[in-house]
Amino acid sequence: MASLADIGLAAAINILTAVAFLVAFAILRLQPFNDRVYFPKWYLKGIRSSPTHSGAAVNKFVNLDCSTYIRFLNWMPAALRMPELELIDHAGLDSVVFIRIFRLGLKIFVPITLLSFAVLVPVNMTGRSLENVKDVTFSDIDKLSISNIAPESDRFWAHLVMAYVFTFWACYALYKEYENLASMRLHFLASQSRRPDQFTVLVRNVPPDADESVSEHVEHFFCVNHPDHYLSHQIVYNANNLARLVDTKKSLQNWLVYYQNKYERNSAKRPSTKTGFCGLWGKTVDAIEYYTDEIEKLSKEEATERERVVSDPKAIMPAAFVSFKSRWGAAVCAQTQQSSNPTLWLTEWAPEPRDVYWSSLAIPFVELTIRRLIMAVALFFLTFFFMIPIAFVQSLANIEGIEKVLPFLKPIIEQKVVKSFIQGFLPGIALKIFLILLPTILMTMSKIEGYTSLSGLEKRSAGKYYLFLLVNVFFGSIITGTAFEQLNKFMSQSANELPRTAGVTMPMKATFFITYIMVDGWSGVAVEILRLKPLIVYHLKNAFLVKTDQDREQAMDPGSIEFASSEPRIQLYFMLGLVYSVVTPILLPFILVFFGFSYLVLRHQIINVYNQQYESGGAFWPDVHRRIIIGMVISHILFLGLLSTKGAAQSTPLLIVLPVLTIWFHKYCKNRFEPAFVQFPLQDAMVKDTLERATEPNLNIRLYLRDAYVHPCFKDDIVEQQVAIDEEESNPLVPTKRQSRRSTPGHSKYGSEISSNGSEREV
Amino acid sequence: MASLADIGLAAAINILTAVAFLVAFAILRLQPFNDRVYFPKWYLKGIRSSPTHSGAAVNKFVNLDCSTYIRFLNWMPAALRMPELELIDHAGLDSVVFIRIFRLGLKIFVPITLLSFAVLVPVNMTGRSLENVKDVTFSDIDKLSISNIAPESDRFWAHLVMAYVFTFWACYALYKEYENLASMRLHFLASQSRRPDQFTVLVRNVPPDADESVSEHVEHFFCVNHPDHYLSHQIVYNANNLARLVDTKKSLQNWLVYYQNKYERNSAKRPSTKTGFCGLWGKTVDAIEYYTDEIEKLSKEEATERERVVSDPKAIMPAAFVSFKSRWGAAVCAQTQQSSNPTLWLTEWAPEPRDVYWSSLAIPFVELTIRRLIMAVALFFLTFFFMIPIAFVQSLANIEGIEKVLPFLKPIIEQKVVKSFIQGFLPGIALKIFLILLPTILMTMSKIEGYTSLSGLEKRSAGKYYLFLLVNVFFGSIITGTAFEQLNKFMSQSANELPRTAGVTMPMKATFFITYIMVDGWSGVAVEILRLKPLIVYHLKNAFLVKTDQDREQAMDPGSIEFASSEPRIQLYFMLGLVYSVVTPILLPFILVFFGFSYLVLRHQIINVYNQQYESGGAFWPDVHRRIIIGMVISHILFLGLLSTKGAAQSTPLLIVLPVLTIWFHKYCKNRFEPAFVQFPLQDAMVKDTLERATEPNLNIRLYLRDAYVHPCFKDDIVEQQVAIDEEESNPLVPTKRQSRRSTPGHSKYGSEISSNGSEREV
Repeated sequence: MASLADIGLAAAINILTAVAFLVAFAILRLQPFNDRVYFPKWYLKGIRSSPTHSGAAVNKFVNLDCSTYIRFLNWMPAALRMPELELIDHAGLDSVVFIRIFRLGLKIFVPITLLSFAVLVPVNMTGRSLENVKDVTFSDIDKLSISNIAPESDRFWAHLVMAYVFTFWACYALYKEYENLASMRLHFLASQSRRPDQFTVLVRNVPPDADESVSEHVEHFFCVNHPDHYLSHQIVYNANNLARLVDTKKSLQNWLVYYQNKYERNSAKRPSTKTGFCGLWGKTVDAIEYYTDEIEKLSKEEATERERVVSDPKAIMPAAFVSFKSRWGAAVCAQTQQSSNPTLWLTEWAPEPRDVYWSSLAIPFVELTIRRLIMAVALFFLTFFFMIPIAFVQSLANIEGIEKVLPFLKPIIEQKVVKSFIQGFLPGIALKIFLILLPTILMTMSKIEGYTSLSGLEKRSAGKYYLFLLVNVFFGSIITGTAFEQLNKFMSQSANELPRTAGVTMPMKATFFITYIMVDGWSGVAVEILRLKPLIVYHLKNAFLVKTDQDREQAMDPGSIEFASSEPRIQLYFMLGLVYSVVTPILLPFILVFFGFSYLVLRHQIINVYNQQYESGGAFWPDVHRRIIIGMVISHILFLGLLSTKGAAQSTPLLIVLPVLTIWFHKYCKNRFEPAFVQFPLQDAMVKDTLERATEPNLNIRLYLRDAYVHPCFKDDIVEQQVAIDEEESNPLVPTKRQSRRSTPGHSKYGSEISSNGSEREV
Repeated sequence: MASLADIGLAAAINILTAVAFLVAFAILRLQPFNDRVYFPKWYLKGIRSSPTHSGAAVNKFVNLDCSTYIRFLNWMPAALRMPELELIDHAGLDSVVFIRIFRLGLKIFVPITLLSFAVLVPVNMTGRSLENVKDVTFSDIDKLSISNIAPESDRFWAHLVMAYVFTFWACYALYKEYENLASMRLHFLASQSRRPDQFTVLVRNVPPDADESVSEHVEHFFCVNHPDHYLSHQIVYNANNLARLVDTKKSLQNWLVYYQNKYERNSAKRPSTKTGFCGLWGKTVDAIEYYTDEIEKLSKEEATERERVVSDPKAIMPAAFVSFKSRWGAAVCAQTQQSSNPTLWLTEWAPEPRDVYWSSLAIPFVELTIRRLIMAVALFFLTFFFMIPIAFVQSLANIEGIEKVLPFLKPIIEQKVVKSFIQGFLPGIALKIFLILLPTILMTMSKIEGYTSLSGLEKRSAGKYYLFLLVNVFFGSIITGTAFEQLNKFMSQSANELPRTAGVTMPMKATFFITYIMVDGWSGVAVEILRLKPLIVYHLKNAFLVKTDQDREQAMDPGSIEFASSEPRIQLYFMLGLVYSVVTPILLPFILVFFGFSYLVLRHQIINVYNQQYESGGAFWPDVHRRIIIGMVISHILFLGLLSTKGAAQSTPLLIVLPVLTIWFHKYCKNRFEPAFVQFPLQDAMVKDTLERATEPNLNIRLYLRDAYVHPCFKDDIVEQQVAIDEEESNPLVPTKRQSRRSTPGHSKYGSEISSNGSEREV
């Protein structure tokens, strides 16, 4: 077991690392040539412009003003200064709700920590049960934990009462937060300006019809069943292939630019490349010519594909975005069942246009359920068979374990610094490497499951990742770590005994989790703020690709919150805090530092760096809430298991009440608040409709929605086309084919199948 | 353990009992004076009239035609003759769906039985593992079961394959049935004639408003938020007190009639009664005068209460039945969220008027969640602490157990007949007595939980009863019975080992369940058809209360299906069949007899006896389906436990696939079919609306809905009032106050607050 000194060393190393990162960040962020790495949000907003435009040549790249270095930590108060309402305006509600998770962590754990240290630590310290035990060596940390209390002691009442107090406080904080966020969300939705998704519903599984095309079928169905509200619709093309071509073309164009730049700088020698994989082998050719040719070829291919998608009926998917004349009509359609066969005409709120995940729109119902079954089984195997390597690493992390397996290493390991290093660092880092690989796999799995929006995909991936972390990091560390310490005892028990075993071994794993919090939490946050990868990528791109300001704009990689991977990690800290709050209070300050530091850094990043990919209005909060509740229930069960082995059986009925009450509390919250995060109430829709009708009586909603849900591949074209049209318009003497097409605006080329139906608002 | 001979004796006793009941039924049903007990459904339909009107005096009471007695079993083919469509017409879809549960049982278990006997019984019989065991006595039945196979035998593959075959067959049958019923339900709803609930939505938790009454508030809210569809509404009064008064008055009137009849028959002596409880003590008074006075008093009280309910704003509940101009409007309102606070303005489909459970309509949201928490805890205690007495009875049912506890009884018990009787009968009867008490308690609990319709109450009570039967009858019998046979082994195991223990002891409990099936199933059905209680009650009423034909009508007690108590019992047989299909196939024929016999009897009862209390269109089917699936999953888990103790560990992965697939199948079915049982699709609503508009363009829907959702206490009054009005109308020379009230039809006295809103259809 690691002693307090080991932990101290690990903490020192981690704090030093974090400080080093912070200093590096403080220096780098002040350099003008890094401006687009550390403040991309402002560039995207158009508020900040490149510093290269003004000032002396050196000042463009390096900040020589020493006074700014002295105040190198002043980003911290700056990050806290922006008020919440302004922040919502600046970065969207999703971001604000996300950083409120950290605030909630502080709100829950600051009082819990204070109470723990005031009540439980003295109770544990004076327990003195461990002083009499000889056969196992215990560390100082264990003396502060519940392990130090003798079995059947009356002191357990203190822990029991505290478990109640902590649970009630956490529930109270959760309730207040949910209430706050629900009203914030409703207020946000109500004050939002007009958005296409407010009027639009995504319809999937349009049944095939022998006589009609998908487009006609959709139109007729909604004309009949929503006669007073239906406005228009937009069919969905299977443009996945086209999107791939566009991407390839873009990458080739990047290479072309790269070689052109190279040639410009050194015009003596024309750059050459090889035709094979990544230009590593194959025939040597002139690079600029080669890429120009390739792009030419690809452009033609793209044009053919574009034509095919638009004209081929097989490229039309049985899905459509149906728009309504009012928000009320859309709200009704999204919330009701359309057809007597509940697997046809499935309606749901359309995601924001930028939030749509186009590839998933065409999966039929039966295939969807089969895909989800397969993915559930795959997730099971992924979750439970990933444990084997972790178990191996965990065994290494235990000094005694290594000495048993590899006795010849003993002299090296027994050196004090090496020992502390192994115990403090290794387990955390090994786990971390595993975890870096994972989110991408999980996101792919979610994509296979066929969710139609990026926000939905992120929510689902987060759920999978949470399960993984729970099983592998939390339970895996508690139980498998045990397997090497108490191997004999463990093997003779049945698998059903595991919860109890976990309850017993849990206090012993506190030191491991403390190091984990430092390595994964503290250093992770410090790495986050330094943004090493975007920094390097940006400078590479800048050196080789950037010619114009627009290029520089594209070279920026602001990144985003990445809810799918970051939220489950936060949940792990919530769980650790809740589980150990009663058992090993010494862990709590580490959690507090994590939440506080993360809050600060994330707030800074949201203000200055991250770009929003979509705006779901904090729709993920019910998930966050549910997972914290799960953490609480697990903490209750483990505490119950722990106490039952401590001979405090009379407390069992009292402890069973806790999870029951917690689950009931969750149900109550779910009923009370969750609908606000899922549905759009008719009353609010009606209010917004009425208001809009009064303020903008001449609004042409049809025009507004016309191209909102066009596939992004076609979007550029429409812009181009419209520019072309505008040019033609200014020269009315040249009537062209294009203009004649324009004269029937209801049938633009790229799929905006707009049908006239009944009277319109503007009439 | 009971031998085959014991089972044979028990079967003989039970079959004799059943035959005796059937003969008694055959004789009794042919007597004209029992006609209203055995054929009340036809009287209620108005098709059959009392046989007392015609024929000779003796023939009125006793059937002397011997030829009818010879064909005393001809009710059986008669019961099967009515085709299903006619049956739906005659008894409603609920009844037909209910008897289809038995048909499904036959459909699932006939092939399973055949296969079991063809494959598993020979495999088990030739296992010969039990012949070598000396320390435990096994019966002949065990030799036909899986117990007869030696551990680690390859013969288990037969059982494994059969488990797969049975599961797939059961799933196939379930799928077909669900598909059938979904289309039957949709067809039923589509072909249904106009009903008030199609246009009406129940709104609960209307928020209080300082300036407006509940009625005004409801009207304004729906005028604003459903402007094109809102028609009218009906507020809900708290008339629980009034209903109680009406009931008391009715019972007093019965007593008055009783004494009047007595006096008429024997006019020499005026009957007297005592004023105390049930007329047992207190002052002796003249009965007729006393009851006349009491009724007089009560009538006054009732009139005051009636006035108070109508005028007191506190008697108005924050709930209302809101009616719409079209089915489409109602479907939309029922399926959408109205207000941004999801606990206010809760809308749901209005139940049929006769299905409304009025007392529950006013429970506020928070109180509701607390009530449900308390009831959940109460259900837990009821379910798990009821086991103690059953365990005691079970111990008695075991000969060896009794002999150990009470050794002096040995000579009596060892007598062959007594032994068989104890082993065959006692456990079943003891359980049965428990179970008779239960449904009433569970129904009361559901009422406390605040469900608003009788159908909902029955569904919830069925769920509770199912849980109870599962834990106490099924698991209780398997595990507690074990406690006396394997006490030492059991106590040394941990509580988590129970599933495995259950898997081991399950085959040994087969004989107990066979006797249970006979006593509870077979005899239960025979008792059902004899209708002893209604027979006695009817003749008592007939002797003392009946004067007119209308009285006789009221004396009939047709009863109903009683879904809440009968469906969970059927589920128990499904579960027994599924669990023992692989383990002890000899149990299956007993299940088959139960399903076949029940199907026959229930069909007869539905055609001739039961009255429908409500028509939910088979809305309970998803519950039935889910519970059969639960039975299948439990059977898989128990089989897994059994095989793991038999050393067939290599089969574990194969067996784990089964419950996963079954649960996935359930999810698929739920998504595919359940919405058809919960919601009303807009397409269907629109079709019916359009059809109605075409066929009845002049329909006044407002008039049609005016009094549909008036509290039953006020309903009689409205009829009376209208009769009075009609009388006045025919005499136009006498203008009265009443007629002046009639001139404002929008505000009838008893709460039909009808507001005019926009244009009406008939305009």
